[in-house]
Amino acid sequence: MSGALSRLSINQMTVRQLTVPALVEACVTLGVPAVGLWREPVAEHGLAATAKLVRDAGLTVTSLCRGGFLTAADPAGRARALDDNRAAVDEAAALGTDTLVLVPGGLPPGSRDLAAARERIAECLAVLAPYAGERGVRLAVEPLHPMFAADRSVVSTLDQALDLAERFPADRVGVVVDTYHVWWDDRAPAAVARAGAAGRLHAVQFADWTTPLPAGVLTGRGQLGDGVVDLRAWRERVEAAGWCGPFEVELFSDGLWGRDGAEVVAETAGRFTDCVL
Amino acid sequence: MSGALSRLSINQMTVRQLTVPALVEACVTLGVPAVGLWREPVAEHGLAATAKLVRDAGLTVTSLCRGGFLTAADPAGRARALDDNRAAVDEAAALGTDTLVLVPGGLPPGSRDLAAARERIAECLAVLAPYAGERGVRLAVEPLHPMFAADRSVVSTLDQALDLAERFPADRVGVVVDTYHVWWDDRAPAAVARAGAAGRLHAVQFADWTTPLPAGVLTGRGQLGDGVVDLRAWRERVEAAGWCGPFEVELFSDGLWGRDGAEVVAETAGRFTDCVL
Repeated sequence: MSGALSRLSINQMTVRQLTVPALVEACVTLGVPAVGLWREPVAEHGLAATAKLVRDAGLTVTSLCRGGFLTAADPAGRARALDDNRAAVDEAAALGTDTLVLVPGGLPPGSRDLAAARERIAECLAVLAPYAGERGVRLAVEPLHPMFAADRSVVSTLDQALDLAERFPADRVGVVVDTYHVWWDDRAPAAVARAGAAGRLHAVQFADWTTPLPAGVLTGRGQLGDGVVDLRAWRERVEAAGWCGPFEVELFSDGLWGRDGAEVVAETAGRFTDCVL
Repeated sequence: MSGALSRLSINQMTVRQLTVPALVEACVTLGVPAVGLWREPVAEHGLAATAKLVRDAGLTVTSLCRGGFLTAADPAGRARALDDNRAAVDEAAALGTDTLVLVPGGLPPGSRDLAAARERIAECLAVLAPYAGERGVRLAVEPLHPMFAADRSVVSTLDQALDLAERFPADRVGVVVDTYHVWWDDRAPAAVARAGAAGRLHAVQFADWTTPLPAGVLTGRGQLGDGVVDLRAWRERVEAAGWCGPFEVELFSDGLWGRDGAEVVAETAGRFTDCVL
C-alpha cells in the first residue's frame, strides 16, 4: 500500500455509480486502505455480503452514513426515527465500523423553531447514545452548511454540534468535521481544537467548495483542489487537534457521478496526495 | 398613510421590473413611506431625477445598495474598488439617505485565504469611513449567508461584521441585519443585541428562506411568510435591541420578478402587516 494513501478513505457517495464490489476492487487496485459506506447501497448488495467483501479485501470501514434526522415533533415520527437509527447502529456494528455519521435533521413541516428542533435532537441522542455504546458504535454529529439549515440540519456549526455532543460521554457522541460544511466559519478552527481536546473528533471528511452551486445545492461539491478550501490547512488543523485517523473524501457531484467510477477513485487519490497531504 | 405600513420600506430589488417612477407611484398609492434604492436602476433613471422624484413624492430613502466588494488583493483592483465606493457614498448623499449598504466581497481569484480577505476589507473601511462620515453617510456592512462566502462575502455572520465595524466610530461604520442571511445562526440574536448596544445597527432587512434553492442560489428568496424564518421574532429582536427605524423588504426572486410589479408591492405590504408586525 502506498504510504501517501495510508490515511485515505473513499466515501462511497463519491462514486455512487460503482457497485460495492467495484468500489472495493478500485480501492484495492489503487492501494486505498479504507472506505466510508452508505446504508442504501450496502443494503442493495446485502449487509452481510458487504461486511464479508470489505473484510476479505482488507479494507477498513471508516464510517457508516448515515443516521440522524432526529427533529420530528410528533411522537410517531420520533419513534420511526429512533427505530431507524437503532437499525443504523446495528448495521455499523455489522460492518465493523465504530462510527455512525448523524445528519441532525431540519425543521419539521410548518415549524420555524430552530431551538426546539435542536433540543429534540438532544432528546433523541439521549436514547441512542447508550444503545450505540453497548454495540461499540460512536455517534458522530455532522454540522451541515447553513444553506441546509431548513431541510437537513438545524445544526450548522461545529460549536453547535459540540454543544450537543458534550451532553454525553465523549466515547459515545462526537462530531464530524467536513471541510465542505465548515470551511467558511471563522470560529471553526477553535471548535476543531475544542473537539480534539474533548476527544470528540470522531470523523474527518474532505470536499472542496466550488461555485456556482447547482439547483438544490446538494450535488455541487468540488473535487479536491478545484475549489477555494485550503485543504492542507484543514488537514494540519485537525492533526494539531490530535486527529491521527483516516481522511474520508466525500464528494456529492453530478459531474463526478457521470464519469467512470474507477477513474474518479484514481483521480481522487491523486488529488488527495497533491492537495491535502 | 396606513399606520401599519409606517415602518415599511420597499427595497427596489424586490420589484426590479418596475422603473423608478413606477416604484414611487406604487409606494405612494399604497401608503408605503420609504424605499431602498440600488445604484444601477438609479443611474438608469438619473441620480438627480431620482432624488427629486422621491423627494417630491415624500418618500424616505432608507438605504442605497450597494457599495463594497473590498477584497481585491492587487493595488489596481483595490483602487478601483475605493473609487467606486466613494462614488457610491456621493450617490447616497445625493439621494438623501444616510446609509450605504456594503457587500464585503468574496475571495479574489486563486485565493483561499479568508482571513487575509477580511483584513483587506478593514483596510478599505479605514479609507472609506472618514470620506463617508464627512458626507453624512454611514457604512453598513452586511454579512451574507455563508453560501456566498466564496464569491460575495467573506463576512458570513453578524459577529464578524461587528468585529470589523467596531474598529471604527459607530456613527460611521455599522451593520445590516438581513433575516435571509442570518436566520440560521444561533449566535445572531446575541449579536443583534451587541449591535444595538453599540449603536451599530444601521439597517434591517426582511426576506424569508424557502427551499429548494435555485441554481446560483442568488434569486431564491422567499416572499414574507412563504418560508421558515420567524419574521415576527426577528422584528421583536431588533426592536428589543433599540431599532425603531424602517424595515426594508428585499427579495431577490425570479418568481416575484416575473409578476406585475405593483401587485408584488401590494402583496409585500400585506405580508409585512400579517407576518412581521
